[in-house]
Amino acid sequence: MKTGNLIIEHATVVTPVGSSARKGSDMSELLTIKDACVVCTDGVIEYVGPADNLPPVDFSLFDRIDAGGKALLPGFVDSHTHLIFGGFRPDEFEWRLKGDTYMSIMQRGGGIQSTVNATRATSEDELVRRAQWFIDRMSDMGVTTVEAKSGYGLDTATEEKMLRAIRRLAEKTDQKLRIVSTFLGAHAVPKEYAGRTDEYVDLIIREMLPRFRDLTDCCDIFCEKNVFEIEESRRLLTAAKEMGYKLKLHADEIVQLGGAELAAELGALSADHLLHVSDAGVESMAKAGVVATLLPLTAFTLKEPYAPARKFIDAGGAVALATDLNPGSCFSGSIPLTIALACIYMKMSIEEVITALTLNGAAAIGLADEVGSIEVGKKADFAMLETDNINILPYYVGMNCVGTVISGGRILRQGIK
Amino acid sequence: MKTGNLIIEHATVVTPVGSSARKGSDMSELLTIKDACVVCTDGVIEYVGPADNLPPVDFSLFDRIDAGGKALLPGFVDSHTHLIFGGFRPDEFEWRLKGDTYMSIMQRGGGIQSTVNATRATSEDELVRRAQWFIDRMSDMGVTTVEAKSGYGLDTATEEKMLRAIRRLAEKTDQKLRIVSTFLGAHAVPKEYAGRTDEYVDLIIREMLPRFRDLTDCCDIFCEKNVFEIEESRRLLTAAKEMGYKLKLHADEIVQLGGAELAAELGALSADHLLHVSDAGVESMAKAGVVATLLPLTAFTLKEPYAPARKFIDAGGAVALATDLNPGSCFSGSIPLTIALACIYMKMSIEEVITALTLNGAAAIGLADEVGSIEVGKKADFAMLETDNINILPYYVGMNCVGTVISGGRILRQGIK
Repeated sequence: MKTGNLIIEHATVVTPVGSSARKGSDMSELLTIKDACVVCTDGVIEYVGPADNLPPVDFSLFDRIDAGGKALLPGFVDSHTHLIFGGFRPDEFEWRLKGDTYMSIMQRGGGIQSTVNATRATSEDELVRRAQWFIDRMSDMGVTTVEAKSGYGLDTATEEKMLRAIRRLAEKTDQKLRIVSTFLGAHAVPKEYAGRTDEYVDLIIREMLPRFRDLTDCCDIFCEKNVFEIEESRRLLTAAKEMGYKLKLHADEIVQLGGAELAAELGALSADHLLHVSDAGVESMAKAGVVATLLPLTAFTLKEPYAPARKFIDAGGAVALATDLNPGSCFSGSIPLTIALACIYMKMSIEEVITALTLNGAAAIGLADEVGSIEVGKKADFAMLETDNINILPYYVGMNCVGTVISGGRILRQGIK
Repeated sequence: MKTGNLIIEHATVVTPVGSSARKGSDMSELLTIKDACVVCTDGVIEYVGPADNLPPVDFSLFDRIDAGGKALLPGFVDSHTHLIFGGFRPDEFEWRLKGDTYMSIMQRGGGIQSTVNATRATSEDELVRRAQWFIDRMSDMGVTTVEAKSGYGLDTATEEKMLRAIRRLAEKTDQKLRIVSTFLGAHAVPKEYAGRTDEYVDLIIREMLPRFRDLTDCCDIFCEKNVFEIEESRRLLTAAKEMGYKLKLHADEIVQLGGAELAAELGALSADHLLHVSDAGVESMAKAGVVATLLPLTAFTLKEPYAPARKFIDAGGAVALATDLNPGSCFSGSIPLTIALACIYMKMSIEEVITALTLNGAAAIGLADEVGSIEVGKKADFAMLETDNINILPYYVGMNCVGTVISGGRILRQGIK
């Protein structure tokens, strides 16, 4: 086991700065330090700066990387994924390509209920094994922190199984990245509660929220018309907040319902998706400091319009980008494609995209004081590009530009020498 | 060095069949053989079929793969790339994101001329080294045959250097994939011939075409308004055809000029891009059996409309898909993203996409009798998916679904056990 003691020399450090989300025009402000030295001790950044001002440490037993001028970014934070699930739904994807409607797919046995059935039938060990496969791929793309949601159980036992699986992944001693969990029992109304949404919300509030408080810090809800409407969402999230949960919302993805405004009202960490957010929702989120977590891979996969990233930034808001990896609407964890979509199709600048995938992603899961930038005291998580030029990120379309990956000071992957 | 003797057991073989391009509705017709055995001797497929009917061969010294039911496809053929070039153009990409026009980019030193300058200044050794980097990544995505064009020299010496570099790559004894070259001296009018396009065409016909006949079999041209117009293209390609070159065209990419019709008239192997092809062009290509090579990554990168794949297929034509990897308009070799774009945005079926990336790609470079399908006598080139289900290909959006890669019977990469 590596110690997390590491010195990186001759790096071009490129990083946002701070311990909270960067907002509006501040999202473009990156600190660049050429020919920088970064010293990491026990997995934490101890020094960032010129080589002639190093701390008086004996580096003889440190790992050592000569970056050769390459761009050293904070490790990416994928702040919205559903990476724990049973089964796969490739056939449903093919039905959709052929024009099947959502209802017809449900009738053929597709949709979220099929993943719920499969997840209930999958053992915790197997959920852990499957998720690790995705985690290894994420790590190769430079992700060093990932959020994973429950939400394919929709009953107390299976939601707990999912959260325990996430905890086991997080606690593996050789785990490649940091994993945090979010409870999403209100992902859908389970078939056992069809037509009785309020009773399912009651079950979550009465049974699940108290029981899972030790397993996770965040509570999320799929706030959508005909799923959990505004009043139901407010009731559940208020109860969660009173128990000390931090809040997240799937908001305004399919129709304009007002989830963004609710997120602002409740002081959520983030509202996510937001394809159909109202202008008032944009303004209220910006004012309240709620991170707008945008998920372009899902819009791309479903041929939906992209979320209005520029509106959020121009209103002084904070935008994060994440993959939404899930077995239905977006079976992809591609950071490179996320970057390409954000730059080419959402008109975000490369600097804004870097902030959105690092510090603002960290803020969206309440970790902006621990990860998301290259600063003294933060976790020694880095994604080193294969060149000195951050413009490579959208330019090398859909391809991985990250070479060396470092998590907690441990070198997980080596780029070109 | 491996011998190329290999037996693959328990594979789900999925392949188009034939030694020429599949057209129209035949593009959807794939042969599927469950629990198949594939025997490869000296890098060539000797047997495909059930295990109880194997040829009487001593397999004790053969490499052996248990596919465990996974889908075994022909290796992918990337039939249109510009993978030999000097320099990179990430900054130009960023200017374009910020709204710079084509003319303004040229004035700032961008555009194809900047790659021409860099390629002229790059040694043959270095061109080989750089291209190998891309080739290694292509191989990981299941590509076993790639076409590489010249066209960043625009003078005799540099065009020859590029073609020699491609030959050296092709002849490396440990090369991971088969590489064929195309001469594209008529990629642009070099600055030395500004306003004298006819004289540059004369130079190509008089000096380059005869000189390069031993280096390559194919001749291509960028047939576009204000570059090489129809008459100039016809003159050059007719001369090339008389010298025994097979023909390819960059056609109807930017405006509807009639390149598709010209390709049909001259019996070209393929016409490529075709974003603005006329209905008459579609019909004439289908009748003449010219492969329509569509390049969705370029349209994606430039935010252009996708080429009308369905029109070609519905007219009874043959469609191939390729990446167009190049340093300007499309710096990407992503096979996964090509597949996603074709299925989601061009309405091609998964079966059609497989045919387009294998047998029809092979036909587009004149190799349909040697590669592109899993049949006795063809090269033992395979891309094995990580599951038994080809629907994974577009479903795992932008991510690599290929595990084991085999080229000429040699195992280059191993998937999940």
